[in-house]
Amino acid sequence: MSIVTVGTMAFDTIETPFGKIERAIGGSATYVAWVASSFYKPIKQVSVVGGDFPQEELDELGKRGVSFDAVEIKKDEKSFFWSGKYHLDMNTRDTLITDLNVLEHFNPVIPESYQDCKYLMLGNLAPAVQKSVIHQLKNKPKLIILDTMNFWMDIAMDELLETLKLVDVLVVNDSEARQLSEEFSLVKAAHKIHAMGPKYVVIKKGEHGALLFHDGKVFSAPALPLEEVFDPTGAGDCFAGGFVGHLAKTDDISFENMKKAVIIGSAMASFCVEKFGTERLKEITHEDILKRVKQFEELTNFEAIQL
Amino acid sequence: MSIVTVGTMAFDTIETPFGKIERAIGGSATYVAWVASSFYKPIKQVSVVGGDFPQEELDELGKRGVSFDAVEIKKDEKSFFWSGKYHLDMNTRDTLITDLNVLEHFNPVIPESYQDCKYLMLGNLAPAVQKSVIHQLKNKPKLIILDTMNFWMDIAMDELLETLKLVDVLVVNDSEARQLSEEFSLVKAAHKIHAMGPKYVVIKKGEHGALLFHDGKVFSAPALPLEEVFDPTGAGDCFAGGFVGHLAKTDDISFENMKKAVIIGSAMASFCVEKFGTERLKEITHEDILKRVKQFEELTNFEAIQL
Repeated sequence: MSIVTVGTMAFDTIETPFGKIERAIGGSATYVAWVASSFYKPIKQVSVVGGDFPQEELDELGKRGVSFDAVEIKKDEKSFFWSGKYHLDMNTRDTLITDLNVLEHFNPVIPESYQDCKYLMLGNLAPAVQKSVIHQLKNKPKLIILDTMNFWMDIAMDELLETLKLVDVLVVNDSEARQLSEEFSLVKAAHKIHAMGPKYVVIKKGEHGALLFHDGKVFSAPALPLEEVFDPTGAGDCFAGGFVGHLAKTDDISFENMKKAVIIGSAMASFCVEKFGTERLKEITHEDILKRVKQFEELTNFEAIQL
Repeated sequence: MSIVTVGTMAFDTIETPFGKIERAIGGSATYVAWVASSFYKPIKQVSVVGGDFPQEELDELGKRGVSFDAVEIKKDEKSFFWSGKYHLDMNTRDTLITDLNVLEHFNPVIPESYQDCKYLMLGNLAPAVQKSVIHQLKNKPKLIILDTMNFWMDIAMDELLETLKLVDVLVVNDSEARQLSEEFSLVKAAHKIHAMGPKYVVIKKGEHGALLFHDGKVFSAPALPLEEVFDPTGAGDCFAGGFVGHLAKTDDISFENMKKAVIIGSAMASFCVEKFGTERLKEITHEDILKRVKQFEELTNFEAIQL
């Protein structure tokens, strides 16, 4: 069995109140692969890059058990490029440049070697591409997780709704959940999204943690209170990577285990924001992850209350 | 021993997207007393009302173990009146009218019968009044908790800082914590507030729950995800009431027990917002509180994570 991850591999130019980094390696599939490979292998990537994407980055991920049979390299084109500037509150940002480049005509081809997919992580990408991957898998994966963003709701809502019908878990942030459902209350939003297909809905709230909804039950995970958020880019993808990595490792999709996956996703996101781009993810050890997860346990656990 | 609570007893005219209520009974001390009396008695109130304040309201609270020896009744004056209108997001509101009335010249006199105070809950009121109560207590209470708001930071910051030196627990919301500390990060804000006096800092984040900081430790309590927030007025005071009520009942101010007090405060706040003013607080039973606290346990608890 394997995790198949779908998403962008890209360059990001990021400006935060703490500094600026030019053309850092980013993209949803990059972040997911870095994080999920801390928990499980093999991870089989579906993406597209241009001739400008550094081979060393693929090699580094390769050493972590990530394979690239379905990563198309368009030698004569440029990789996806995004540039953004974060506001002082770090919760909002302006997109300065979006150059789709290789993404403009991307039709992924899923090879035979990917047909052992048990956990499918559809990272942020055009809903039509996400759907195409689902349809190319001959056996339905045990769990299909989809991440998306407001951009696709603006320009491809119909395709997104079509794709959502095929998905088990939707992972979005609060503003995306509100836009998708046209409900302000996140509880009502989750109900409406359940009706669109996903039996599990995860709503990420940045510094306020995340909510998991399933079958009338709710779980609330905190975010780690941090002195500084250095760069939030990729935090949502790291959440997804930790979430799917833990589920694949334990091969258990019970609600109880999914709670733990949400905590692990939150822990991995908390590392991501400590440095620019993927820097922090490249440093952390198993020991660091253990310690961070323990911090989350201390942060939320309280003894049973007698009244 | 007793809980002494200090605060306003007032009329509120409240408009929310769901409706409007004219001159509902409100005020910080009213909410605190309604909630704290679900957990502990006696509760000894310090406040001031005008001749217009209904005796039945005092009688109702009296039946719950609340005494009024230090509630001054200024027969020929009017009670404090506040009117506000909530925005659609229910997190922000405009104050339309603030008539201080009886509050303008309020110098509380603490009688001998209040000298058994062990838990002092200084609800939202002028810092000078809060300080005067502390100084009139002959024996230092076991725990002094203070709630305040941006209004006092705007017009009486020096007195607030003087008062904070005498306080064990500060309970404020996130924007108040930021204004008081001049720090955006709530972690940094809590550090700065510790240095002002309070060893414990509780930061309420509305629909995002609450954080408790003490001695380098942090506890994160969720808010109950609700379909609707009907009227947030008084939610912060209900939090304070549940918090102090539980601490007094158990007479245990360890960090572990304070975590539970934060959960109980959050549970009581979640009732408050379900109806206008104090309506919901007057209905709920011990059974309802038990159930709600159980919901909070289910909302946050997860099994220990093995990696």
